[in-house]
Amino acid sequence: MAVPGCPLCEGPGGTVIFSGPKFRVVRAAEEGFPAFYRVIWTAHVAEFSQLSPEDRETCMAAVVCVEEALREHLQPTKINLAALGNMVPHLHWHVIARFDWDSRFPDPVWSPARRQVPSERVADVEALRPGLEARISARLVNSPPWPA
Amino acid sequence: MAVPGCPLCEGPGGTVIFSGPKFRVVRAAEEGFPAFYRVIWTAHVAEFSQLSPEDRETCMAAVVCVEEALREHLQPTKINLAALGNMVPHLHWHVIARFDWDSRFPDPVWSPARRQVPSERVADVEALRPGLEARISARLVNSPPWPA
Repeated sequence: MAVPGCPLCEGPGGTVIFSGPKFRVVRAAEEGFPAFYRVIWTAHVAEFSQLSPEDRETCMAAVVCVEEALREHLQPTKINLAALGNMVPHLHWHVIARFDWDSRFPDPVWSPARRQVPSERVADVEALRPGLEARISARLVNSPPWPA
Repeated sequence: MAVPGCPLCEGPGGTVIFSGPKFRVVRAAEEGFPAFYRVIWTAHVAEFSQLSPEDRETCMAAVVCVEEALREHLQPTKINLAALGNMVPHLHWHVIARFDWDSRFPDPVWSPARRQVPSERVADVEALRPGLEARISARLVNSPPWPA
């Protein structure tokens, strides 16, 4: 099923937090965004609507699991969700904690920067990541959102 | 439930294609993006994970309905889905047909423009909108994605 040349078929796409049969959760290294995660579907599918209804439910349960953990652990100003895939048409959801101090807020992360990011704020979030990521992984291991 | 000052509580947020008890579908007037739709949740809720599991399912069924109609009628290069809400924290999903000729492709629609949009390409898509929008409305009326 892997498509030669697809970076999400051939590589993890970030630091792996959880890996299951249907999807994995990774942390992306996006400068100035210390809580930028992705839910990457394992199979090479371009569009969300190409998944079966059951797989769509599994996929969004994973997205919601990450979103809830970000809200609980980080109290971000807002959560941003997006499945774009213009560059890499392999289904992946961006799940991003946004803060009113981040470089683009309230613009999307893909807009030009508005300000410098205070490095101590980034460090504060980074310090919370181990607990956050342990929570995400534990929830997905203990209550896997795919049919038994 | 309406929040004073919230533009999506107080106004439609676009040209209404379908309106039901849980959500509405509107076409946004975004220059150069002739097939830019939004699924706007009726209740004022900021985050997707704040919906009940049943409402999340209803919401994503609406998003998928719009996505499928865009794919069938327009054969876009890619579909983009996003729930951001940094400016307007009232849950709404952007469902956008992207084309390799549009002003930002393959960047997100929120990035700086890369090129001028050929107006005849936009007009070609606009000509397909009546059929597309009738399809979206008919599907949501005939198979409403909320519990009976």
